[in-house]
Amino acid sequence: MASSASMQPRGVYAAVLTPFTKELEPDPALFVAQCRWLLENGCDGLAPLGTTGEANSLSVDHRITLIEAAASSGLPMTKFIPGAGSCALADAVKVTRAAVKAGSGGALLLPPFYYKNPSEDGLFAFFSEVIQRVGDSRLKLYLYHFPQLSTVPITVPLIGRLMAAYPGTVAGLKDSSGDWSNTARLLKEFPGFGVFSGSEEFLLANLRAGGVGCISASTNVTAPLARPVYLAWQDKTAEELQKSLTEVRLILQSYPMQAALKQVCSIIQANPQWLNLLPPNRPLAAAQASELMARLTALSQMQAILGKAATKAA
Amino acid sequence: MASSASMQPRGVYAAVLTPFTKELEPDPALFVAQCRWLLENGCDGLAPLGTTGEANSLSVDHRITLIEAAASSGLPMTKFIPGAGSCALADAVKVTRAAVKAGSGGALLLPPFYYKNPSEDGLFAFFSEVIQRVGDSRLKLYLYHFPQLSTVPITVPLIGRLMAAYPGTVAGLKDSSGDWSNTARLLKEFPGFGVFSGSEEFLLANLRAGGVGCISASTNVTAPLARPVYLAWQDKTAEELQKSLTEVRLILQSYPMQAALKQVCSIIQANPQWLNLLPPNRPLAAAQASELMARLTALSQMQAILGKAATKAA
Repeated sequence: MASSASMQPRGVYAAVLTPFTKELEPDPALFVAQCRWLLENGCDGLAPLGTTGEANSLSVDHRITLIEAAASSGLPMTKFIPGAGSCALADAVKVTRAAVKAGSGGALLLPPFYYKNPSEDGLFAFFSEVIQRVGDSRLKLYLYHFPQLSTVPITVPLIGRLMAAYPGTVAGLKDSSGDWSNTARLLKEFPGFGVFSGSEEFLLANLRAGGVGCISASTNVTAPLARPVYLAWQDKTAEELQKSLTEVRLILQSYPMQAALKQVCSIIQANPQWLNLLPPNRPLAAAQASELMARLTALSQMQAILGKAATKAA
Repeated sequence: MASSASMQPRGVYAAVLTPFTKELEPDPALFVAQCRWLLENGCDGLAPLGTTGEANSLSVDHRITLIEAAASSGLPMTKFIPGAGSCALADAVKVTRAAVKAGSGGALLLPPFYYKNPSEDGLFAFFSEVIQRVGDSRLKLYLYHFPQLSTVPITVPLIGRLMAAYPGTVAGLKDSSGDWSNTARLLKEFPGFGVFSGSEEFLLANLRAGGVGCISASTNVTAPLARPVYLAWQDKTAEELQKSLTEVRLILQSYPMQAALKQVCSIIQANPQWLNLLPPNRPLAAAQASELMARLTALSQMQAILGKAATKAA
């Protein structure tokens, strides 16, 4: 138990953006570069191929290509929790298997999200089938609770059944509901369960309540500000750091998230390729993009991030 | 225009159920048999691999295998409008291409349904990319409006833009909203557009208002009752026939649809394999199944259908 707990993924994770070519194909080289940059600039780990990574807009082959690109580039795969969910059982199995094979620290699974109001039995059956078909004791499954997009919540009874049936495999959850009371309840119900907040807004609160950290879209940009919160979470200073971090997050989340983050990355890295998104996602309109950059530039805590970018761009 | 109109898919279509083996793999032979039975028992055409066909629970390879099984079995593919949608652009392109290659009369496309409140531009871009990448003048695209499940409506402005950009390709729509006023509006806005009702409850109303027929889940069972409504739609007698048809439909739709239809098929065909569903869908509980069968058996118009079954089963 102690050794398993010490191995438990913890800290600041980014839901890595997926870069696309003009032809809207994923760009594995730029993806790997983004992963490396994040690990060198504040991230303890990475959760690519989630909502932020536009994974549901990608084919299974695309997803596996990106997982394998990360693995073969020598990145530390134990720090990876790739998204592996799909409405299609066979696809969820295939991507989860690829994640495990690549040595990933975990796999993040959405519930099947097409049919509405599925029964708890139906969801239990889905996750059970994935676990049994993957059939690999190395699998650490993270459930992905994001009812605003998946429309299918991961409930306390479902988690309880899965943990009882697959102890050691059902390892944690990403709570992207934005509802802190839900996260707090999960932490109370399931002590030791690896609960990540879906936003760095709740990073400090989550750590202090027994959670393991955050897996966030916006840490693609804010990782250097999130890191000090994580390092100082037991100190009083953490509160000021969290406040500064939250300020940036709240600005970013007031725009369509994938588009806003790609906009900022395109500036930080001086690479317009980051503006490519798979439909139905679209880049920000020019006026929105200018407004966003103006709001971020006005924040003192963003100077280092944008300044580093400016230097890189120069 | 006249010849194109005469070639336009019309009449009673079934959203064909997908049969699964115990291992939850699609069963192409039983699928082809179901297609054949439906065409011989009241269906003018077939729309497999939709919501009823659990297509979003299937991999792309599964879907293409079933399309190719139908084509290679000698079934008349011009009568087929397979579901080809996906959240993933590359997957939608792949399945649509396979449908066209197989000689299908059309392809039925859901909008990408993971991201919520996508912009009209984003949806236009998605369907445009599919059409351009498939790049085949034989493609007849049917838009699939089912906001209760997809959460993404197909709006009048979007249809207008797509029809203007791709005349002759954007051929029609399946309206599964259950909202007759929406269907009526589409028929007024777009005369000649191939609008199918998503339920045989509106078959007569749709035909009389200028629509082309229905693509329905429950016609897997009710096709023999829907056929006479279609044949008599210009006669007064059609109203009584529609009433009798609607009575059955309303019973069926008061249960989880895929499970209810598979229950009835398992009885009609005396084949328990039909009870297999992909999670998160689950079979009806025993009590629900008995209740459903009792309600159907009590209807005089179901005697021939269930009787034929009983004979077949005997």
